[in-house]
Amino acid sequence: MSAPQPGALMAAEIAEQPAALARLLEDSEQVREAAGRIRRAAPRFLLAAARGTSDHAALYAKYLAEIRLGLPAGLASPSSMTVYGSRPNLAEVLFLAVSQSGGSPDLVDSTAAARECGALTVAVTNAPDSALAAAAEIHVDIRAGTERAVAATKTYTAELLALYLLLSGERPPAGALPDAAERTLAFTAPEQVAARYAGVDRLVVTGRGYSYPSAREAALKLMETSYLSAQAFSGADLLHGPLAMIDADVPVIAITSPGRGGAAMMPVVERLRDNGAAVLQVGPADGLPLSTDGIAEELLPILEILPLQRLALRLALDRGRDPDRPRGLSKVTRTW
Amino acid sequence: MSAPQPGALMAAEIAEQPAALARLLEDSEQVREAAGRIRRAAPRFLLAAARGTSDHAALYAKYLAEIRLGLPAGLASPSSMTVYGSRPNLAEVLFLAVSQSGGSPDLVDSTAAARECGALTVAVTNAPDSALAAAAEIHVDIRAGTERAVAATKTYTAELLALYLLLSGERPPAGALPDAAERTLAFTAPEQVAARYAGVDRLVVTGRGYSYPSAREAALKLMETSYLSAQAFSGADLLHGPLAMIDADVPVIAITSPGRGGAAMMPVVERLRDNGAAVLQVGPADGLPLSTDGIAEELLPILEILPLQRLALRLALDRGRDPDRPRGLSKVTRTW
Repeated sequence: MSAPQPGALMAAEIAEQPAALARLLEDSEQVREAAGRIRRAAPRFLLAAARGTSDHAALYAKYLAEIRLGLPAGLASPSSMTVYGSRPNLAEVLFLAVSQSGGSPDLVDSTAAARECGALTVAVTNAPDSALAAAAEIHVDIRAGTERAVAATKTYTAELLALYLLLSGERPPAGALPDAAERTLAFTAPEQVAARYAGVDRLVVTGRGYSYPSAREAALKLMETSYLSAQAFSGADLLHGPLAMIDADVPVIAITSPGRGGAAMMPVVERLRDNGAAVLQVGPADGLPLSTDGIAEELLPILEILPLQRLALRLALDRGRDPDRPRGLSKVTRTW
Repeated sequence: MSAPQPGALMAAEIAEQPAALARLLEDSEQVREAAGRIRRAAPRFLLAAARGTSDHAALYAKYLAEIRLGLPAGLASPSSMTVYGSRPNLAEVLFLAVSQSGGSPDLVDSTAAARECGALTVAVTNAPDSALAAAAEIHVDIRAGTERAVAATKTYTAELLALYLLLSGERPPAGALPDAAERTLAFTAPEQVAARYAGVDRLVVTGRGYSYPSAREAALKLMETSYLSAQAFSGADLLHGPLAMIDADVPVIAITSPGRGGAAMMPVVERLRDNGAAVLQVGPADGLPLSTDGIAEELLPILEILPLQRLALRLALDRGRDPDRPRGLSKVTRTW
């Protein structure tokens, strides 16, 4: 058997995303039932718990809960329960654990603890037989198919869509989003712009609102595949300090999709350009273009990450690295 | 009048910290009264809102609320209210806004909105006459004296102490903490180790639990004064991806103070060293030492940041930069 091409797994799973999204949209009975149970429980507060890529999906859920459900929301710090043994009063709390593998012990433990403390616990995973799925009262299967690449791609967008179906109360039509993902993946810009980053080892990604999780996830992909020091900041936080660090050697990728988050980024992009920063925008045709016609603003993060996944893959390959075998990482990270 | 020495303001304010802490401990009537009002309101959730350095104090408050008060807690995303216009149900929510200047419009607006939405609003600032102090129902003055350096130092540790007094229910004795800060500032290690980082432009800072905010704040200081790409990760998150990026050229600073957070970091430090990373520990005598005898674990973040502030100052000066005039920044950042 010949050795696999470097990045072949990651490339294949990036390409699978439109089909994975279509699968979840076409048969969303389980997630709709879970949404109904959440609605009937009428939680007052959302706590979302996750690690790594799934933490960015959890952050997306936080924005959805705040904006669409009017629920105050936070990201759980698992260490409060697992390291310090806190047992908070979680009555009326929706505790949402997000994990591709469902296998990290600290998430399993903090979900079990949250359930004991009175929360309604929901696990969103790609692994119905996992310990996390068993620990939570409700399980939502993102049904992305086995993910073999170490760098998560299709499970991230499937997590985003499952969370949208779970929390927004909306039922988007089956075809539009997968089609938009397909069209976005047909653009060749990510491969074309990769050359600009050939000598770069530091990079900043920024976005606001729903696009801030996209910035975080893009930075993680770049770190784990290309070993770039990629940092993500919300557009507002960027102006509170990190701006000083940005110069011509630290390029910026700004997510400026259509909508309120993108509009709020425009003064930030202007300020960055005034300071001499090299800014590449995700959204406009002359940057990393997206196909967004007819797609709700809340679903754009599913599209925004696609060219950034491809950019991370391309940069890794250009640097002679195999993104399917990042040093020091394995597919399931176990932390306590 | 002669031009000031580069970094003179930052150096002076670093040195003022023991006195600022003593001032707050000796006369904490206002903060104790605010603590009583919070206790009587018996909130069910904490939402903390802040930007920049104060966001790290807000993160510290989140751990305190979870561990000491058993309250589920989250960091507010101001953009949910200011960009997307969400109006969540904040009955029984303690909304804690933290800001040195009390001047950033998005914090003022989101605090006013939170108050309208039913939250008990508390502003912790260094500016009793600020718009934020006026917008909140309760104001706590951290009384650190005017901060002139752009890089916040004394207002950060004063915010931490004010939040501890506000949320922990403890009344530490007046002398021990300022004395420990004084002794920690007397160690010369930060200046001595600075030489190791002379050629470095990427760096990772890591900690867990109460020390995770210290890692975040240290990274911000390094970014805004030395223009290093400094990244902070919780010890657990570091193993979920960013680990791949770390090699001999990307040194790590690990905060391993005595206590449960530090203990939980030890396997992370071991794993990093196994991977060939150059790790400097904050805590042990052979790294960046702290004087922690008799100080409660929850107060250690006030000490941990001191050598890291000095390291940031030293690195900036060694690179010929004036940390009192970081490019592109002003003292009060206004974001919407």
